[in-house]
Amino acid sequence: MGNSFGNIFCLTTFGESHGGGIGAILDGCPAGLEISREEIQVELDRRKPGQSKITTARKEADQVQILSGVKDGVTLGTSIGLLILNEDAKSKSYDNLAELFRPSHADYTYQARYGLRDHRGGGRASNRETAARVAAGAIAKKLLFTLVGSTTLAWVEVIHQIQGEINPLQVTLDQIEANAVRCPDPVAAEKMYAAIAQAKREGNSLGGGLAFLVRGLPAGLGSPVFDKITARIAQGLMSIPATRSIGFGLGAAAAQMKGSEHNDPFILKQGRVTTPDNKAGGVLGGITSGDELYGQLFFKPTATLFMEQETVTQSLEPVRFIAQGRHDPCVLPRAVPIVEAMINLVLADELLGFAVANTDRLKKALA
Amino acid sequence: MGNSFGNIFCLTTFGESHGGGIGAILDGCPAGLEISREEIQVELDRRKPGQSKITTARKEADQVQILSGVKDGVTLGTSIGLLILNEDAKSKSYDNLAELFRPSHADYTYQARYGLRDHRGGGRASNRETAARVAAGAIAKKLLFTLVGSTTLAWVEVIHQIQGEINPLQVTLDQIEANAVRCPDPVAAEKMYAAIAQAKREGNSLGGGLAFLVRGLPAGLGSPVFDKITARIAQGLMSIPATRSIGFGLGAAAAQMKGSEHNDPFILKQGRVTTPDNKAGGVLGGITSGDELYGQLFFKPTATLFMEQETVTQSLEPVRFIAQGRHDPCVLPRAVPIVEAMINLVLADELLGFAVANTDRLKKALA
Amino acid sequence: MGNSFGNIFCLTTFGESHGGGIGAILDGCPAGLEISREEIQVELDRRKPGQSKITTARKEADQVQILSGVKDGVTLGTSIGLLILNEDAKSKSYDNLAELFRPSHADYTYQARYGLRDHRGGGRASNRETAARVAAGAIAKKLLFTLVGSTTLAWVEVIHQIQGEINPLQVTLDQIEANAVRCPDPVAAEKMYAAIAQAKREGNSLGGGLAFLVRGLPAGLGSPVFDKITARIAQGLMSIPATRSIGFGLGAAAAQMKGSEHNDPFILKQGRVTTPDNKAGGVLGGITSGDELYGQLFFKPTATLFMEQETVTQSLEPVRFIAQGRHDPCVLPRAVPIVEAMINLVLADELLGFAVANTDRLKKALA
Amino acid sequence: MGNSFGNIFCLTTFGESHGGGIGAILDGCPAGLEISREEIQVELDRRKPGQSKITTARKEADQVQILSGVKDGVTLGTSIGLLILNEDAKSKSYDNLAELFRPSHADYTYQARYGLRDHRGGGRASNRETAARVAAGAIAKKLLFTLVGSTTLAWVEVIHQIQGEINPLQVTLDQIEANAVRCPDPVAAEKMYAAIAQAKREGNSLGGGLAFLVRGLPAGLGSPVFDKITARIAQGLMSIPATRSIGFGLGAAAAQMKGSEHNDPFILKQGRVTTPDNKAGGVLGGITSGDELYGQLFFKPTATLFMEQETVTQSLEPVRFIAQGRHDPCVLPRAVPIVEAMINLVLADELLGFAVANTDRLKKALA
Repeated sequence: MGNSFGNIFCLTTFGESHGGGIGAILDGCPAGLEISREEIQVELDRRKPGQSKITTARKEADQVQILSGVKDGVTLGTSIGLLILNEDAKSKSYDNLAELFRPSHADYTYQARYGLRDHRGGGRASNRETAARVAAGAIAKKLLFTLVGSTTLAWVEVIHQIQGEINPLQVTLDQIEANAVRCPDPVAAEKMYAAIAQAKREGNSLGGGLAFLVRGLPAGLGSPVFDKITARIAQGLMSIPATRSIGFGLGAAAAQMKGSEHNDPFILKQGRVTTPDNKAGGVLGGITSGDELYGQLFFKPTATLFMEQETVTQSLEPVRFIAQGRHDPCVLPRAVPIVEAMINLVLADELLGFAVANTDRLKKALA
Repeated sequence: MGNSFGNIFCLTTFGESHGGGIGAILDGCPAGLEISREEIQVELDRRKPGQSKITTARKEADQVQILSGVKDGVTLGTSIGLLILNEDAKSKSYDNLAELFRPSHADYTYQARYGLRDHRGGGRASNRETAARVAAGAIAKKLLFTLVGSTTLAWVEVIHQIQGEINPLQVTLDQIEANAVRCPDPVAAEKMYAAIAQAKREGNSLGGGLAFLVRGLPAGLGSPVFDKITARIAQGLMSIPATRSIGFGLGAAAAQMKGSEHNDPFILKQGRVTTPDNKAGGVLGGITSGDELYGQLFFKPTATLFMEQETVTQSLEPVRFIAQGRHDPCVLPRAVPIVEAMINLVLADELLGFAVANTDRLKKALA
Repeated sequence: MGNSFGNIFCLTTFGESHGGGIGAILDGCPAGLEISREEIQVELDRRKPGQSKITTARKEADQVQILSGVKDGVTLGTSIGLLILNEDAKSKSYDNLAELFRPSHADYTYQARYGLRDHRGGGRASNRETAARVAAGAIAKKLLFTLVGSTTLAWVEVIHQIQGEINPLQVTLDQIEANAVRCPDPVAAEKMYAAIAQAKREGNSLGGGLAFLVRGLPAGLGSPVFDKITARIAQGLMSIPATRSIGFGLGAAAAQMKGSEHNDPFILKQGRVTTPDNKAGGVLGGITSGDELYGQLFFKPTATLFMEQETVTQSLEPVRFIAQGRHDPCVLPRAVPIVEAMINLVLADELLGFAVANTDRLKKALA
Repeated sequence: MGNSFGNIFCLTTFGESHGGGIGAILDGCPAGLEISREEIQVELDRRKPGQSKITTARKEADQVQILSGVKDGVTLGTSIGLLILNEDAKSKSYDNLAELFRPSHADYTYQARYGLRDHRGGGRASNRETAARVAAGAIAKKLLFTLVGSTTLAWVEVIHQIQGEINPLQVTLDQIEANAVRCPDPVAAEKMYAAIAQAKREGNSLGGGLAFLVRGLPAGLGSPVFDKITARIAQGLMSIPATRSIGFGLGAAAAQMKGSEHNDPFILKQGRVTTPDNKAGGVLGGITSGDELYGQLFFKPTATLFMEQETVTQSLEPVRFIAQGRHDPCVLPRAVPIVEAMINLVLADELLGFAVANTDRLKKALA
């Protein structure tokens, strides 16, 4: 319950922060897709800790093993087993936490749900589990690119109160990867970097916002009524630790508009139906329109602070404590590949559903 | 694909706007729950068209029939069949739309996905399908109230640029239902009403924002990692037509805060673990904390405008047209019971999952 | 829980024997399939009670209504709502049963599971629920025939101790429908009819066995490892009331053979890979081989007897009673269309899964 | 698609015979269950190759690793990652098979479905994948024993034409494990052993039949209508490689009986509702009655023969070949723990569903 994501192209994951390892089974990936361990590793490397001074000092090589489902660089159609062993687990740092509930962490709620918990590194609630998502997402990315040529990008738009100035339609992967913050506005990126570094020095943390954009999608992806593409991406992205809000198209700003301002007239461009401004964010009625799919995702500041905080223990005693261990003062730079992975997992799944949604496409498939 | 929602307590719906009727099968509702047709009808009446001058003039009695799963006012544990016949379907108004794609509607994307579509009243993309959700949500509401005493409220916070001033912790159902807008701030409600009426006169439409709040939940609901309670509610609410953004706790505002500002220290209150300010919105790590669960949901303005708009036809000819038919100039007042229904469906499902999430609770159940 | 069947092409049903009606939602049926109410009704008419003197005298017209998902005789791709109202429910016959557990019926086990039950006509445990399966199965049948030209037949092979002599490869629908027993061996059919009529006169009941055969399937249907086509058909058929055993290919007889006797060498016939004897029943490793898929299904005798039986009441008092009401003395003739429906539901679902199981087929679908 | 089994207590597996390893994620196991690696290993040791002279000579230690979900010998409620590395994979033996379709194996059908296949050792179609099921089944077994005290046994009843004489109600695990055949009739076991040894010498193989029995189940397990406990066990057992037929209670023999012979009158025994003869096999209407659940499962002879056979190659050339490698001449002795595992997986899942099937049990769980 809760560890699977997807209908046809379905990911199931396991793993605690300080257990033996984390991993995934990806079921429903079509046979015949070329995918190498290295293509998966590239995405994991974008997510892994220790990439810069503003991320956690935890050292994890995060080397993925493909245990099944791929032979000679090609998917077999069988379930794909992915494994990333845990290495640099300094569980000792958590010894003093076994008996207390860290504020704004999941310690208390896991205890309430399960009656016990793995207190080391947040256990299953750790951001570490997202490595399994990123590994599987790399396969989804390859499938999408191979079948329809679409590409998904995410980047940092805002850190704390520093807002980048970015034209989403122009953003490239190179611009995003050009700095440690993953903000394609280099001026803002520098300020963001300084702000995160400052927060780190203070033992404090910062929130922020990401944007995401998918280019090259066909019209028709998304399954009414509950599995609208927006609804499923919302589930996928809001399941990433520390997320607080998601928007599509103009997001919450659309709420303050009149229909005459917000509506997108349909026009023709090179024989294709499109819109001049795509205020809808590429989705109408939960189904992609062929325009770019875009939106925003907001994160709260990291819960771990290296300053004294109040809390209560498991035996319901008030205490004061200071966290130890290694944590990102701001999760956003490393969240970028996770966001892309989750979007790609949804899109790959819905692409398979799209292929069987009408008899014309089915007849071609079965011809 | 896409018409089911839930794992254990699972809703499946059907129905086009102008077809024979809409309905639902609710599977997994425990036996022994007292529920009457009237309790379901109350919620449908809150959603039905024609409640005031600012909602659509479409007349639908929306009388629900319980076809199975309930006997003598008590659930049998078998699947519950719910049916609402369509009545006032003025399909004629749509004759001129059969060949064109209405801007910002789902006509074009349904056509792209399915190769054909029911153009009458938006077909399956119509808000009308949400009546089936509201009917099933009424059963979820009763289950939650019976088992844990929780109550879910939603209300209008903002219409276009008019913001209500509302203390969420004090809001009551009576305040919400006191006016046609369903905004518990009576002064703002009056302005909102006037703004919607004015938009209607202009053939225009308005967007807005709702807030939601759940009181009385136990700590422990929500299934890591993909089925976090926030992720599932996000899917549920973002599957409601016209939604653009969702937030939990402080929502997007959390992104601009430091950890030292946003963290909620744990404190004890009458022996219970709680927090002074509940900035997290009652959810930590995707699991309820026992504090109030709250958030915000934003809607774009209705796509149907009674003014001339540009678009293209199915045969890719540019045209200008003016909509006919009957539509809400602002969907928010009628969205309130839909939002409550979707939240209750998630919570009921997760409550059943919670009951089997540890052996202590299971041993008690099986004793 | 338990009222849905299928992954992509997914059926969910509701309905008690003496409730308001029974029905189904069929989700995932591709758009563009031509299907009429009459095509569905034909299958329901094969299942409906009162077809001959050896079936129950209960009169149900079993007229199906299509409430959604089909417009102008073509599927829309949206969920299909199907409804059959209950008519001739003589609930009075069951008044004396409200307090006792009929032997070999589900009264006791429903009570144990749910704590209450609808005692009228067996409630949800009644064979009546299978009408919803047959209605949906008719759509699956049409989809299979349209996309790959396959046809599924079932027929009666044995009633009590009377065994038909039938060459499965030659059986036609006409032969099956030629007599009330649905046994394509007319000589055996006559004896079977007499035996059932005799059992009816005695207030007794008879068991028997069906055979099933699918012609025209492509090689490649079935999803290893748990959703092998045999495993899924086994679930589907063993979920039909009164079934006791299922076999594929040579069934239990294979257990008494040596590999050298049972193996099917591959040969070429008109350029197609096939086998001389198809002892495997058209399935290897849970995936169809393109040879005919065939097997056997065995039913116990009907539990309702019109003779005095011992049992206990809900308050745990031993009693003796004689059943009232109307029942089939032998369920097999009417089970034929149910068996076909369940097989077709599995095959339609697996056909959609097959279409997305490799990238070659997907590329063609998306071209 | 196809690699998951279960609704609430859900197993997903991966692994090819000669890939990196095989493994499983078990999701939905309640927290607080005591389970050790050794308890899992015990079951794997019963399944592993090389236990006696009549099983395959392949040497696999099949040592399971628990990678997540268990800490200090207690389940955490999070998904449980299980891994068994492959060791003794003599892929060379399969080099000559890369281009041909072995008769009665899944080579041809995998090729038809996926367009490619891992020819080494049967790839995903190998019986080797069942080790992952056995590992997860050991956890299901422990959960069942802990919560309700039930025990599941399977044993060999017939090998080829040698039938054991066994009173199922008296069978013990010790009797089953007392000989290499796992037949509790020692006289028959000796003959079976000799027959299998003889088949091995001849390069031939034998089929056979197992019986299974579950003691100590509460009444009420099983989810009408599609997830009847018999239907789900049928799916689970018929998904085991080489199975051909399954029966419950009297199985196919029930088909030749009259209702007056087959019906089980209810009686009271020590205040409990039961039946004198339990011909139903402990299930009524797909729900357990509290009487012993029992049935039979039949296997075809192993497809691999060490004698010359005809077949065709991938390029559709007829060839003759002789298999190499190491295979069981009869799969039944090693199938015993697999059968137990699959039954326990179904029962554990349905036990959780039972706990939430009525409000009385839920109220106790949530008290």
